[in-house]
Amino acid sequence: MLLPLLVSAIYKEDCYLSFLVVIVISLSLGLLLTAVSRPRDKTIYAREGFIIVALSWVIFSALGALPFVLSGEIPSYVDAFFETVSGFTTTGASILSGERIEAMSYGTLFWRSFTHWVGGMGILVFVVAMTNSVSDRSIHILKAEMPGPTMGKLVPRLRDTAKILYLIYIGLTLLEIIMLICGKMPLFDSIVHALGTAGTGGFGIKGDSIASYSPYCQWVIGIFMLLFGLNFNVYYFSLCRRFRELGHCAEAWVYLAIASVSSIVITINILPLFDGFGEALRHSVFQVATVMSTTGYATQDFNLWPSLSKGILLVLMFVGACANSTAGGLKISRMILLFKSVRVQLKKLIHPRSVNTVIFEGKKVDEDTLTGTTNYFAVYMICFFVIFLIISFEPFDMETNFSAVTACFNNIGPGFGMVGASGNYASYSILSKIVLSVAMLLGRLEIFPILLTLAPSTWMKHK
Amino acid sequence: MLLPLLVSAIYKEDCYLSFLVVIVISLSLGLLLTAVSRPRDKTIYAREGFIIVALSWVIFSALGALPFVLSGEIPSYVDAFFETVSGFTTTGASILSGERIEAMSYGTLFWRSFTHWVGGMGILVFVVAMTNSVSDRSIHILKAEMPGPTMGKLVPRLRDTAKILYLIYIGLTLLEIIMLICGKMPLFDSIVHALGTAGTGGFGIKGDSIASYSPYCQWVIGIFMLLFGLNFNVYYFSLCRRFRELGHCAEAWVYLAIASVSSIVITINILPLFDGFGEALRHSVFQVATVMSTTGYATQDFNLWPSLSKGILLVLMFVGACANSTAGGLKISRMILLFKSVRVQLKKLIHPRSVNTVIFEGKKVDEDTLTGTTNYFAVYMICFFVIFLIISFEPFDMETNFSAVTACFNNIGPGFGMVGASGNYASYSILSKIVLSVAMLLGRLEIFPILLTLAPSTWMKHK
Repeated sequence: MLLPLLVSAIYKEDCYLSFLVVIVISLSLGLLLTAVSRPRDKTIYAREGFIIVALSWVIFSALGALPFVLSGEIPSYVDAFFETVSGFTTTGASILSGERIEAMSYGTLFWRSFTHWVGGMGILVFVVAMTNSVSDRSIHILKAEMPGPTMGKLVPRLRDTAKILYLIYIGLTLLEIIMLICGKMPLFDSIVHALGTAGTGGFGIKGDSIASYSPYCQWVIGIFMLLFGLNFNVYYFSLCRRFRELGHCAEAWVYLAIASVSSIVITINILPLFDGFGEALRHSVFQVATVMSTTGYATQDFNLWPSLSKGILLVLMFVGACANSTAGGLKISRMILLFKSVRVQLKKLIHPRSVNTVIFEGKKVDEDTLTGTTNYFAVYMICFFVIFLIISFEPFDMETNFSAVTACFNNIGPGFGMVGASGNYASYSILSKIVLSVAMLLGRLEIFPILLTLAPSTWMKHK
Repeated sequence: MLLPLLVSAIYKEDCYLSFLVVIVISLSLGLLLTAVSRPRDKTIYAREGFIIVALSWVIFSALGALPFVLSGEIPSYVDAFFETVSGFTTTGASILSGERIEAMSYGTLFWRSFTHWVGGMGILVFVVAMTNSVSDRSIHILKAEMPGPTMGKLVPRLRDTAKILYLIYIGLTLLEIIMLICGKMPLFDSIVHALGTAGTGGFGIKGDSIASYSPYCQWVIGIFMLLFGLNFNVYYFSLCRRFRELGHCAEAWVYLAIASVSSIVITINILPLFDGFGEALRHSVFQVATVMSTTGYATQDFNLWPSLSKGILLVLMFVGACANSTAGGLKISRMILLFKSVRVQLKKLIHPRSVNTVIFEGKKVDEDTLTGTTNYFAVYMICFFVIFLIISFEPFDMETNFSAVTACFNNIGPGFGMVGASGNYASYSILSKIVLSVAMLLGRLEIFPILLTLAPSTWMKHK
């Protein structure tokens, strides 16, 4: 929180005090915990990994919400918690209306977008990369926090992997800031939007998101959203000039293909709404990028678009982007595995005794990964419907409720209807806000860590 | 078609001619096919079973649509095909508006509801039960046609199983007719509604479905819808006094529990809309029964109900009723297996080396069934989203399109919005009607037969 403190100080705002208070609280809490607990057994198993990750995210969000409350800019603590969870999970769903966002102080706005950037790569990966106090045992923490069905170690040592990923991440963010400044966007706006894009979060600082910026800036942000949705391995391989392995990145190619096809179909579909092909294409690419990378910026209220475009966007919300990126959703690689798994099942129906193996990105996929993928899909849909049922207690129309759950669970942000690009989540009740916060955490941490932490059997002693 | 011919003759209507023509066409087609084809290898494998079932359903629907067209009551052939598929698959989605239904002749109305009754148990099971020409090799046909993840043979000989099921089916239908007549419903209305309930179809003969009948009749139909959604094994065990096995029917108990809880929650939710608790309870039970058993009758336009009730009903649409019943949807037993499979997955995450077995209805479930269930779920959701994307080309709002696909795919009938209880599917385009017909067939035959028939590799020679 030193960074937002600095920003507040630069702009000579009052809210720097609230950051100072929270820093003191966090530090003392941390020192207290390390002083009190001296675990005998320091080994971290899968179970401990999951619980550490789940609890850390909840605690970080609880602490991160304090500056909003202390500065008085979001008086209700539940609202502030929702906003912070939405930030850390890179959802970008906000309870603030356009006018209230524009009235906020620079320090708070910066902190709001900075949570995206930290949350994008994973709060704990951030800690791992910053400190030197952890060993390779922490692989279970990383595994639980990184999105995607498989977590490929790029280099043998874990901390090096984290550092490489972070360097790519920082590099891309800086590149975007520079390109936005070239487009004559003010410095502060550029930084905030680059942080939001990098984490695929979606908090903006204007009531109408990106719509009031120039077409050039919209193109830059649109393309960077797609870039941050790519599997980070692609960048690593490109940097190392390992182009042969680049060809094996089936996920990235499928991702780009889906994005292109959807953009073209939507462009044709919305052509009558705009002046020319160029404008329609820009809005269509931007919205496809925002939904696939689960960012949530908007240049257009796509709520007013034809059903076909809305339908495509809704399906893309579930698909999401690549594994090993900062995006949410089901992930492309998981979809590919699902399709392949289904094809094997079909083949088995015809030739019951045949042996079928699934090959993905040049490697054989073992049975466990396949079963895990289909099981994940089942858990995913069950969680979705359970949350949807709880949210249905709200007296809003079905499109609003359904897309609110979709948008939070997949970490996108805006949905359709009342929670659309020009609306916000302020009208939901306190209970629903907490449930939606849990949905965001479930979506970001890929369900299992949170479920395990909530399950009573996890807390029983080792047998 | 001799039965509707008889009905037309009784009521002295002109349309009997159209039934006569179609009977002649079908007979000559059948004779021609048996004369031409004399297969050397009469063994039916799984693959042949699937294809036979899929093609038969399409051909039966194509022929079944003819009377509507020839009698001039549904001039467009695509509309008639949609209506017949909707009948055979026990969906109950109609392209006819209230006034047009009430203007139809008795013969056609009877045929329309009779398709439900035949389709409910399976067209080919019907044939198997009626004729003596088939042997136990036909198990693959039955397997492909019967809903549910497992197909338990009640008695060793296949034809006997089919006959027992049909006897239970006929018995329950007769019981319902008698009870409806006791409620002073006219004879023709009683028969038509009993046929529609038995097949869990939902074609009525009034514009407002069941709403204009007495509360007594509504209770009778509501309860019978629930009864036809029960696993038929329950009836068999009850008749044979094998009460111990009855206790093992976990699916049936879960089904009844879900139905009760949902009814109570909805009753409380809609209480303010009605005069008293009794009325609210009646409408709530009826709508829960109609949606869970995927019948599609309605006593109320639940489109106007609060979001919570609509949300619950939407989720119940996907859940469906028991396996080995005439209902559609995902089926309760599949949901139970999904949950158990997910729990095993969670346990494996904590204790990677533990061996977990899933026990369902007193028997151990093998790995293949579990994988099959999760895979089925994946195929189910993928098909759903693909169909939804195609239907999104229609210029209607998302709630209408989404629930139209839900209602057709799960063989329910009415959805929300424009295709709600008081609407119909007439405004959809020809393409959408065909796609929705395919969706109904996919839902009724549990996806794989149709997918296999469409897959090119199925038609290649044995290796």
